[in-house]
Amino acid sequence: MYPSGFPGQEVGSKGSFVSITPVGEVLEGRSRPTFFRGVATVCMKLFSAVQPERVYFGQKDVQQTVVIKKMVKDFLLPVEVVIGKTERADDGLALSSRNVYLGERRRGVATVLFRALSEAERAYKSAGARTRKEILGAAERVVKEVEQEQGGLEPGRRVRFEVDYISLADPETMEELEVVDAKRGGILSGAVKMLPVEEPREGEDLGHSGGPAVRLIDNIILEPEEA
Amino acid sequence: MYPSGFPGQEVGSKGSFVSITPVGEVLEGRSRPTFFRGVATVCMKLFSAVQPERVYFGQKDVQQTVVIKKMVKDFLLPVEVVIGKTERADDGLALSSRNVYLGERRRGVATVLFRALSEAERAYKSAGARTRKEILGAAERVVKEVEQEQGGLEPGRRVRFEVDYISLADPETMEELEVVDAKRGGILSGAVKMLPVEEPREGEDLGHSGGPAVRLIDNIILEPEEA
Repeated sequence: MYPSGFPGQEVGSKGSFVSITPVGEVLEGRSRPTFFRGVATVCMKLFSAVQPERVYFGQKDVQQTVVIKKMVKDFLLPVEVVIGKTERADDGLALSSRNVYLGERRRGVATVLFRALSEAERAYKSAGARTRKEILGAAERVVKEVEQEQGGLEPGRRVRFEVDYISLADPETMEELEVVDAKRGGILSGAVKMLPVEEPREGEDLGHSGGPAVRLIDNIILEPEEA
Repeated sequence: MYPSGFPGQEVGSKGSFVSITPVGEVLEGRSRPTFFRGVATVCMKLFSAVQPERVYFGQKDVQQTVVIKKMVKDFLLPVEVVIGKTERADDGLALSSRNVYLGERRRGVATVLFRALSEAERAYKSAGARTRKEILGAAERVVKEVEQEQGGLEPGRRVRFEVDYISLADPETMEELEVVDAKRGGILSGAVKMLPVEEPREGEDLGHSGGPAVRLIDNIILEPEEA
């Protein structure tokens, strides 16, 4: 990337960088403080080298799409950003190369995040909810339900997971919202860590590499209302 | 500049920025830690909006030229950077809008920086000096001489000035050099603050606005040797 060598991944490392804040600092950027700086920097260079008319990004990495759209807008880059929708399995699980690490048992429960986000979306779209409490409350009920369900099973059957975050954020800054302005809409997103199974059963398919912890992300856009 | 409002000039302020370090942090950037971040950011946006074939910058703001050339190189910007040489008065003083604040007395001594840099250049070019000590020593002798000269005059005649820095730096990173690699060359630069006169004489031209302190900068490129 750099003629003068690799710049390092620390916040204070020297180099030529594009930073887009605050959007790059929250959610997925919180635990990886230079991740979106890296994304913006390499994309700026790539766009400059290739001079494309259109660039394509996947909806699944929603924060990345917001960072790129903000960079294109703020620097007036002459490029159109096209977002491809998230591909899903029949039960709704977002396709991801990581899914192969889940194994059958965890694969069955891995839809918890999408189901939680979908309930929150339903609260917004069908039930007219606008507050964070109402919208994320619907998601939390799904999570609690699945946790209780799994908690009632024995260790050889149950699946444990940890919710990293479920967020309701502004579509341009990704700052958390207390109330959704229906003219702007919002972004529902979340991350869930599927923990390794406790007691593998005889011959159980644990997924690739023995079924390590798998962190899954997903999101649903709350589209603004038509004017 | 920003659709979402003015981002502020603090290091931690939120916004979309291009930072070019370490070159933006040293010398002129030391006392103004977000100055070159601002320069790089607005130039990136301007280049993107205008899509120019060539951009022109003045040699006098040498650190700015190094920041821009580094940005163009690191981000592969499709633009040619042209540096216009510093225009000078007959006695060598670099032309600057600030010179009108000097008044006649200080104007006569204001060449001290250029003379110091020129002596350092002569040590490099004609006397074959390569070490920081030899090269900057030549500049310091000029400064000392002028200081002694002025110190011998009475307050109604003398001029006081303070050397902010005289630097011998790498042409691409602007990091201070101990030894000049003649294949790379270097940048001699400096900043001098001309202090207000102590005792104005009857009817003396003190310069615009009563002759405030005036900070002057200048530089000379030590060109690499021909191969």
